[in-house]
Amino acid sequence: MTPLPKAVVEALQSVLGEGPIPLHEPRFHGNEQRYVQDCIESTFVSSVGAYVDRFERALAEYTGARRAVAVVNGTAALQVALRLAGVRAGDEVIAPALTFVATANAVHYLGATPHFADSSEATLGLDPDALRDWLEHTAERTADGIRNRHTGRPLRAVVPMHTFGHPCDLDGLMAVAHDYRLTLVEDAAESLGSRYHGRHTGTFGLLGALSFNGNKIITTGGGGAILTNDERLADHAKHLTTTAKQPHRWEYVHDEIGYNFRMPNLNAALGCAQLEQLPDFLAAKRQLADRYQEAFSGVEGAHLIREPEGTKSNYWFQTLLLDEGEAEQRDRVLEATNEAGLMTRPAWALMHQLVPYRDCPRAPLPVAESLARRVINLPSSAGLV
Amino acid sequence: MTPLPKAVVEALQSVLGEGPIPLHEPRFHGNEQRYVQDCIESTFVSSVGAYVDRFERALAEYTGARRAVAVVNGTAALQVALRLAGVRAGDEVIAPALTFVATANAVHYLGATPHFADSSEATLGLDPDALRDWLEHTAERTADGIRNRHTGRPLRAVVPMHTFGHPCDLDGLMAVAHDYRLTLVEDAAESLGSRYHGRHTGTFGLLGALSFNGNKIITTGGGGAILTNDERLADHAKHLTTTAKQPHRWEYVHDEIGYNFRMPNLNAALGCAQLEQLPDFLAAKRQLADRYQEAFSGVEGAHLIREPEGTKSNYWFQTLLLDEGEAEQRDRVLEATNEAGLMTRPAWALMHQLVPYRDCPRAPLPVAESLARRVINLPSSAGLV
Repeated sequence: MTPLPKAVVEALQSVLGEGPIPLHEPRFHGNEQRYVQDCIESTFVSSVGAYVDRFERALAEYTGARRAVAVVNGTAALQVALRLAGVRAGDEVIAPALTFVATANAVHYLGATPHFADSSEATLGLDPDALRDWLEHTAERTADGIRNRHTGRPLRAVVPMHTFGHPCDLDGLMAVAHDYRLTLVEDAAESLGSRYHGRHTGTFGLLGALSFNGNKIITTGGGGAILTNDERLADHAKHLTTTAKQPHRWEYVHDEIGYNFRMPNLNAALGCAQLEQLPDFLAAKRQLADRYQEAFSGVEGAHLIREPEGTKSNYWFQTLLLDEGEAEQRDRVLEATNEAGLMTRPAWALMHQLVPYRDCPRAPLPVAESLARRVINLPSSAGLV
Repeated sequence: MTPLPKAVVEALQSVLGEGPIPLHEPRFHGNEQRYVQDCIESTFVSSVGAYVDRFERALAEYTGARRAVAVVNGTAALQVALRLAGVRAGDEVIAPALTFVATANAVHYLGATPHFADSSEATLGLDPDALRDWLEHTAERTADGIRNRHTGRPLRAVVPMHTFGHPCDLDGLMAVAHDYRLTLVEDAAESLGSRYHGRHTGTFGLLGALSFNGNKIITTGGGGAILTNDERLADHAKHLTTTAKQPHRWEYVHDEIGYNFRMPNLNAALGCAQLEQLPDFLAAKRQLADRYQEAFSGVEGAHLIREPEGTKSNYWFQTLLLDEGEAEQRDRVLEATNEAGLMTRPAWALMHQLVPYRDCPRAPLPVAESLARRVINLPSSAGLV
């Protein structure tokens, strides 16, 4: 039998040819140059401008959210979404241990503490059954919600993240959130274009956060957006992210502590052009997943992760999962593929393993720990098919 | 005698002609389109890319700072500069009451409290003599610095802001900072191109913060930069603003709680083109100041603010100062000018008058309060001459 590292390289080469192939690169084959030129000609490159409004409307229309508020990046979007969900200093917020650090950072910036929970192997996202078991032991009711019986801090919200674009078990998570009076806020940074039972991710929670960083399915250079179906929250999101300045012809009065989180019009211009091409990117990524699946069908000891049942994933990051028995081969597979010029990477270090978050409360994390030992992200650009 | 509102409108029209004339608009007559197109063609529009490095080097060279670190906006730059200056949750930071809200917000985001001090009519910035008097009554020595004897909180840093581009009395402020063991961090958001005794503002403090928002003398759409002469702090600033990820071929390990504060390469491309034209913008703004001065020389009850002695101002915002006796005419002047299509505005509401900051500690603020009643910013674009 071919050793696993060699088998993975060969399977990748059968799809991609020879390297070098980056993990993810954006494509600008649409109206990017035209819109950005127009934006500069208008002189409105900054915090006001027609492309910001247009991008927000296009995002709302595409996702089916009533409103989208464009901001400077996905971390900022999540921070403001959590604040609007009522997260305050001293609270705890349930978040997956298996996520990019921005999820935990957004909680921390509000003076709250992330409380890490386990993931499901079927979705790579928060496992509602494990979360329910954990809360049964850990949460106690108070007059206005629940608190962590060990730390005494209010448990205010739960923030599932749709890992690599694959939707979490949202029905299960909404039920847990309901039963434990936790506000659901979705970290949909990776899942623009992903749907759960036909509805777009990021629109199930009270608020959701998108990201348009350079490595995402569409990019604005740097950017993000807050999604919500609540007009009042959307207006408040706009207010908070534009320094909380009261509207006035000339006075500069700020009625609460807001943020300079506006998406510049220049970046929104790029975003408008990118969003027009999202259906093409989604089709290409799905096709790439099919090709990878076929290529890896003959490889023993690893399989390609496919979208969870009842969902349509954007396949943002293509992901190979090593069998438990092959987990110790992970670094050799990473070595072999990267040395062949085919860029791969493992999952992020788990949040509770990072020095700044190691003392945060956490549930048992057996699945997240297992996944972190076995996940390998493959070259995923839409331009590869 | 012509009533003041009418006299101001006529003086403005003698320089600007008929309106509509905005308060400030950027100019893109250089390499903006070329660099931005090149950036999109390279596909590196996001958090890494050649224009970010080039913009940082160009800023360092222009300002004379050893290092510049480009970030997502001026508020983010100041927040990180303050954190690197040692400001921690529970500290107090001396800041002017007469400033844009970002100065106070940056302090607040770190869990610290702004402590407002008075301004000088000569510079519009923090008054070192008034500050020294105030600290004599308010500060008491501790083992590692000083604290506010009334609140018990450490007084950690002082953040002068160079109002409308005019440099503060930096010699005076550096002496107070030295004597009271306060770390000096400059909010140079408005003063790119402004010099104090020949040296660029933002390079006197341990760190300084620049802004390239759309209304600034140069713009990147949205953006800012941290200046410092300390290589170690600059490296740390880069680390903190890029999510504090440890360098590694594929592992995602973050060794402290950082920020997603990177300036996208797309915005840096615009910045590189803008910075090439800064000398032209400075010359145009100086010429505009001269024209306004002449036009207002015949207007009684108001005078144009000129650069403080020993400094070279960028004249970012042209500013008319009403005499004390005419302060009550301010809103009528604002009405008349704006109705004539000549956009003007007053100074910001003072920080201690904003609801979220009204309970912060503060010195007596007679000069700031007087200035806030009398300042009127005039149309200031470089393209007006």
